[in-house]
Amino acid sequence: MSGMLYGIGTGPGDPDLLTVKATNILQQLEIIYAPAGRKEGDSLALSITRAYLPDHIEIKTHHFPMTHDLDEKSTVWDNVAQSIQLDVLAGKKVGFISLGDIMLYSTWVSLLERLQGTIPIIMIPGITSFAYIAAKTGRPLAMAQQSLTVLSCTAPLEVLDAAFQSQSSFVLMKVSRNLAMVRALLKKYHLLEHAILVTNGALSSEKIVQHLQDIDETETLPYFSTILVNSKWRF
Amino acid sequence: MSGMLYGIGTGPGDPDLLTVKATNILQQLEIIYAPAGRKEGDSLALSITRAYLPDHIEIKTHHFPMTHDLDEKSTVWDNVAQSIQLDVLAGKKVGFISLGDIMLYSTWVSLLERLQGTIPIIMIPGITSFAYIAAKTGRPLAMAQQSLTVLSCTAPLEVLDAAFQSQSSFVLMKVSRNLAMVRALLKKYHLLEHAILVTNGALSSEKIVQHLQDIDETETLPYFSTILVNSKWRF
Repeated sequence: MSGMLYGIGTGPGDPDLLTVKATNILQQLEIIYAPAGRKEGDSLALSITRAYLPDHIEIKTHHFPMTHDLDEKSTVWDNVAQSIQLDVLAGKKVGFISLGDIMLYSTWVSLLERLQGTIPIIMIPGITSFAYIAAKTGRPLAMAQQSLTVLSCTAPLEVLDAAFQSQSSFVLMKVSRNLAMVRALLKKYHLLEHAILVTNGALSSEKIVQHLQDIDETETLPYFSTILVNSKWRF
Repeated sequence: MSGMLYGIGTGPGDPDLLTVKATNILQQLEIIYAPAGRKEGDSLALSITRAYLPDHIEIKTHHFPMTHDLDEKSTVWDNVAQSIQLDVLAGKKVGFISLGDIMLYSTWVSLLERLQGTIPIIMIPGITSFAYIAAKTGRPLAMAQQSLTVLSCTAPLEVLDAAFQSQSSFVLMKVSRNLAMVRALLKKYHLLEHAILVTNGALSSEKIVQHLQDIDETETLPYFSTILVNSKWRF
């Protein structure tokens, strides 16, 4: 009887976009840790996996406060990590789920930092939001010798500007609160016509916006808003 | 009775890393197109999906010559596209499979260019080799404000050099024939200790190389060789 921690990427939102491996593991879990607290992310990861979970699984949700206070965040992570560690050392099969891929802009990484090397861990990759959007909208991410740059729109303006200037294909994540800035950059580099915005991709509330210039700049986009740009693709 | 073309990403190699959606679609196909011809890629995509295919499916393999002759390549693509188009217009459910994700460095895109708008097409994303490697080796792809750059090592040296100079996290794809150059760049930017090489990831012949300096520079790596670098991750 040996415990195990599974870090599982749930993909962007459609339960059918989980991997077969993820669904097999979910069915064997005894305890699942799921994030809660973000207004729109509340139990979303849990709802995506719900159909695959065994009836008597113990669900432990943890609340992450929307704060820039690193000490406060760190304390929450320490507590969750400690709780998971105790469960695994008690011999339990424990899962932690995260939207999209587990290793890209995922809260999972904060846990991994604390737990790697202390307990056995297996990680299962997930479909990223941008792979989903590319397939859904028929726009390649990168072709032949082209590079693909995945950017967090919370990065400094000069980082984004440099990428816009030098790259032909990129993914803009965490667009939500940064739409005005992003659109100004797209305009500056004549990339507006090559961009597509998807909000809540693979969820029932999914919206695809082909013409970014049509959106009201003062509008607050959903938390899950991603833009793809590939200026080498003619459609 | 209306035909449909499904472009399906098979993931890196483990049949369990297909999505549930991909397996559901594979089970309903009447015809499947699979690439053949690369020495090591021969029928690999087909072998990954084999367990999910219906008994009486028609398998059409197409050979892509290893050539830099664009006209020759283009003729092959034209013929495959035409054949698929005829099958779909005849009302068939037709699948085209491709390793990894369907929209990233995939032969699928050459087909999409020819067929988009002429027949109904649905695309299903797949797990990329780098998402698999990150999960397998416990190395995050990008965190917080960090960017992730995915590079094809067939790109010009100055493109790779610029990325190495400015980025902290990147994925190097198509490393196979370019190991000496890649390793020289990693050395130049003091990134060797942050790099990990995986060949034939998620296949039975998978190898993980933690110390790139230990590989013989004259060695020819397998076709599926990928390097991850994230200098911000301490392990």
